Amino acid sequence: MIHTFNPTHYFNTLGSHPPVLRVSDGDTIITSCVDAAGGDAKGDKIASGPNPMSGPFFVDGAAPGDTLAVDLKAIRLTRAHGWTRNVLAQNVVEPHYAQELPDRYGPKGVWQIDTAAGTTTLLEPKTALGNLALPLNPMPGCFGVAPALGQAISTETSGRHGGNMDYNGFVAGVTAYFPVEAEGALFFIGDAHARQGDGEISGTGIEISSEMEFALRVIKNKRIGTVRGENSTHIFAVGNARPLDEAAQIATTEMSRWLMEDYGLDHFAVGLLMGQCVEYNLGNMFDPAYTMVCKMPKQFLKKLG
Amino acid sequence: MIHTFNPTHYFNTLGSHPPVLRVSDGDTIITSCVDAAGGDAKGDKIASGPNPMSGPFFVDGAAPGDTLAVDLKAIRLTRAHGWTRNVLAQNVVEPHYAQELPDRYGPKGVWQIDTAAGTTTLLEPKTALGNLALPLNPMPGCFGVAPALGQAISTETSGRHGGNMDYNGFVAGVTAYFPVEAEGALFFIGDAHARQGDGEISGTGIEISSEMEFALRVIKNKRIGTVRGENSTHIFAVGNARPLDEAAQIATTEMSRWLMEDYGLDHFAVGLLMGQCVEYNLGNMFDPAYTMVCKMPKQFLKKLG
Amino acid sequence: MIHTFNPTHYFNTLGSHPPVLRVSDGDTIITSCVDAAGGDAKGDKIASGPNPMSGPFFVDGAAPGDTLAVDLKAIRLTRAHGWTRNVLAQNVVEPHYAQELPDRYGPKGVWQIDTAAGTTTLLEPKTALGNLALPLNPMPGCFGVAPALGQAISTETSGRHGGNMDYNGFVAGVTAYFPVEAEGALFFIGDAHARQGDGEISGTGIEISSEMEFALRVIKNKRIGTVRGENSTHIFAVGNARPLDEAAQIATTEMSRWLMEDYGLDHFAVGLLMGQCVEYNLGNMFDPAYTMVCKMPKQFLKKLG
Amino acid sequence: MIHTFNPTHYFNTLGSHPPVLRVSDGDTIITSCVDAAGGDAKGDKIASGPNPMSGPFFVDGAAPGDTLAVDLKAIRLTRAHGWTRNVLAQNVVEPHYAQELPDRYGPKGVWQIDTAAGTTTLLEPKTALGNLALPLNPMPGCFGVAPALGQAISTETSGRHGGNMDYNGFVAGVTAYFPVEAEGALFFIGDAHARQGDGEISGTGIEISSEMEFALRVIKNKRIGTVRGENSTHIFAVGNARPLDEAAQIATTEMSRWLMEDYGLDHFAVGLLMGQCVEYNLGNMFDPAYTMVCKMPKQFLKKLG
Repeated sequence: MIHTFNPTHYFNTLGSHPPVLRVSDGDTIITSCVDAAGGDAKGDKIASGPNPMSGPFFVDGAAPGDTLAVDLKAIRLTRAHGWTRNVLAQNVVEPHYAQELPDRYGPKGVWQIDTAAGTTTLLEPKTALGNLALPLNPMPGCFGVAPALGQAISTETSGRHGGNMDYNGFVAGVTAYFPVEAEGALFFIGDAHARQGDGEISGTGIEISSEMEFALRVIKNKRIGTVRGENSTHIFAVGNARPLDEAAQIATTEMSRWLMEDYGLDHFAVGLLMGQCVEYNLGNMFDPAYTMVCKMPKQFLKKLG
Repeated sequence: MIHTFNPTHYFNTLGSHPPVLRVSDGDTIITSCVDAAGGDAKGDKIASGPNPMSGPFFVDGAAPGDTLAVDLKAIRLTRAHGWTRNVLAQNVVEPHYAQELPDRYGPKGVWQIDTAAGTTTLLEPKTALGNLALPLNPMPGCFGVAPALGQAISTETSGRHGGNMDYNGFVAGVTAYFPVEAEGALFFIGDAHARQGDGEISGTGIEISSEMEFALRVIKNKRIGTVRGENSTHIFAVGNARPLDEAAQIATTEMSRWLMEDYGLDHFAVGLLMGQCVEYNLGNMFDPAYTMVCKMPKQFLKKLG
Repeated sequence: MIHTFNPTHYFNTLGSHPPVLRVSDGDTIITSCVDAAGGDAKGDKIASGPNPMSGPFFVDGAAPGDTLAVDLKAIRLTRAHGWTRNVLAQNVVEPHYAQELPDRYGPKGVWQIDTAAGTTTLLEPKTALGNLALPLNPMPGCFGVAPALGQAISTETSGRHGGNMDYNGFVAGVTAYFPVEAEGALFFIGDAHARQGDGEISGTGIEISSEMEFALRVIKNKRIGTVRGENSTHIFAVGNARPLDEAAQIATTEMSRWLMEDYGLDHFAVGLLMGQCVEYNLGNMFDPAYTMVCKMPKQFLKKLG
Repeated sequence: MIHTFNPTHYFNTLGSHPPVLRVSDGDTIITSCVDAAGGDAKGDKIASGPNPMSGPFFVDGAAPGDTLAVDLKAIRLTRAHGWTRNVLAQNVVEPHYAQELPDRYGPKGVWQIDTAAGTTTLLEPKTALGNLALPLNPMPGCFGVAPALGQAISTETSGRHGGNMDYNGFVAGVTAYFPVEAEGALFFIGDAHARQGDGEISGTGIEISSEMEFALRVIKNKRIGTVRGENSTHIFAVGNARPLDEAAQIATTEMSRWLMEDYGLDHFAVGLLMGQCVEYNLGNMFDPAYTMVCKMPKQFLKKLG
């Protein structure tokens, strides 16, 4: 079944809030989402930041100990303009270099969105870049489920429940997996980026309102330790923590467990395969928790499991 | 001019050691190199670890304040077998998971090298991977120049002078740039890997003896702050430090400076371009210093500079 | 006014939960608290971990933008026995050393409490330490206020709102200051330690039930950036984050602001005074967020402000 | 035997340089030392930074696998004025706060030294601190031995061989222990601070020329893993690394080994004793490697070993 949903209120935390919609296992939801600052498709600010979320969506049958699979079907950009911060964040450069940076809270950058052409073009500010045109790569910056212990965690940050991961590998066609910690899983999504470099090092992607389309599936009695994902070429595990070392440790540990549990490998096979084949991507290194992604090419897994 | 060289002794530090060969600006050197443990093409251990280096090669005219460009022309594997450690390193997994890992100093993994087919095949140990065959991707794990202050720094680690970066993007066709800190630059190279996953998370690539071919060029009066590189698609800056956050800060800062100095960007243009276009790669997160690489696609730089 | 309170339910998050008691500015509360695992004064487990909190206590007049001062008057230990974990945590030792450690979840250590003598004596397990007797130093491991944005954050961790700081400098006689982010401040306390080494490196102090006595005072229109404290000899600022570097940065920044706002110093005076006089203490380096404390001796502040 | 020595040249690296003096096991050396920038007792700059070292001193009989004990007998300040940097370092504050800091390379602070009174008094710059007078606490900022592998490591940084630890607990009366990695140990010392706050957070102590008096003793066939020390009240282990977490891990691991090897404890006794009794001090968090010190009060060790 397909549900079309338009939020009347938004959340700045991922937590066990009253569900806005209840769906069955396997249903598809199409929901509008505001941008990171609460701007809607008309450019009106209808919610306050950080990263107002659409949801929570309650999935029947999802319970702690299960995994929620989220098939990202489409991230449609619903406005002709996106915005950015325009200066590198102070924490992504060497400390002494931070002193050389100008104020990063000046006027926002303005980018035109051409979904037909698949490009986004810089309009403001005027710099040596001129009207730089870049390929679109729409992604949700922040999505996830209610965390454990009844916690409610700010959408500025992320954790094992997902959240503000700002990973540009979460695009249409990807399935993301989240550990269910609350009845109904309670899924949230929003904060679309028309495009974003690795690391979100200026503190934003190209921030824009969106319409997200995704299916929610429950995998019963499957415990995972952190967010996972899968696309046509890779499986991947997502570590959300500070510093990057710890984010990488979480992602690496989760991939090791995945390969042992589902692909029949022991520690030696894991060490040999991961040691020579693994790839890492950087989600964000701007938010309170950073994001590192440990990826395994499926081509090397074909004869296993 | 092309120099063919066979070392009679090797160094375990990058420092201001007596040069083994003196070459002119632009010359090409073809040198044999032992593997990380000192094993030569016959498999005989003729040097002791860590990472015995061929060199130092003195380049006429190179002086502190210059940059040394190293055109990697070929990394030829000179042995039919490479070796690996077979268990994830304790520092790349969550601390509690480290306790579950078996001893990583058991028998080494053995990999057959088929340069004609371009593959490497796992022979030992016997695991669920069977005789896993992987594409070759030859790279020098450790190379660089004499560091500042007359220091001599272990080939286990890395810094602004290069060293044990273990970055699998340093392949034939790449030009690497090093800040010259000693007369003649004093270039060292060795520690070939037939292949290596991102992060060198089992503590080795597929370690093997090699013949390295490269040209050394001096760029006079060009000061760079850390290792840089360039291939057909990207320019990149390399940060070597702990933790990963700091390695990433160094790489990011160096890319910002590069774009400002050579491409005419100001801080706003840098923030806009890097924020939405930059890519990061992980070199190693095993050695005493970790390695993060900040990359900019050349396609976005075409109209600049 | 003095309120004596006995909780009927406990919270595992610091958040905007319904208040259990409403008090006036300046009132004193005496509340019973269970230990970190929910054990009460009789040793019965009446709540589940982590760190069940007594509270929240609503203070009339406290509003976002204010500071809550908490005068710790007494931490009375209400059981003859406390318990500990007995093995160093894996994350406080070098990663390769973690592999040598035994299972840390074996039988708990048992310590006798003698409040008259002011000592605690090791009863179990039997080791070369015999019946080691140590001075008591009672402290609340976890206390704080509701965080911003309506978040509810696990008592396993800490942040600018306080929480599980496990700092052994929070003893009777100290005043702690918290930034108010919710109406009434909503103060929580519990998790007494009869004693604890710096860093909480075995993962626990000597965990015990308690009766906490404290006064709550509202400082109107005083914004602080993180937890602060004061005792007879020092003022101090508390950074809660990972890694320790960032915890130290937060504490140092807060101390700098404090000296500038309340003692009339500029950046040069701050640099001179802090550079030559500051002291750091380590709270915990076990929990999800670590704690570093930046302290300034009051003797050097006498002629200022 | 007592040797009085005045260097004619200084080193900016700790490495296997030609010894300037050869002494017997147990001998005492009194050597003059320049300050961190090479200033001598007259205020003349006779060496260049960073941290020019007196030495190396060769101790007969010291060989790799031994430990060098250094009894710090006196650190005499030999100039009437010391100097400081006057602004917090950018890396010790939150990244966004670094932008608020003024240039830290302006005129140096000037401090009068009164060894008779035991105080140091701020003369320049003029701030709200006025002529702040502080107690003297003389210490060598940088000292240690030649590192392993024939390395030569900058005196800006530190490691298992010692170096620029900037720990204000290294005062007269302390014995420091270093792992010997080269024949004769090759001991270096210099970089006196008249006083320094924890963390060396403005980037300097009160920098001054000095006369250091110390005895060098060889402990044969005693392998230690990093710098250790001992005073009248504590034994301590010193971790030098980045980030602070890793410095603390090294110090903690070394203390655990010490207690097991010399005091007869097993992992449980270590966990119980260290968990409830250990103290941490911060050396520097300014240099390329940071320093954390893990201390155990001797009072709890009396009945052991």
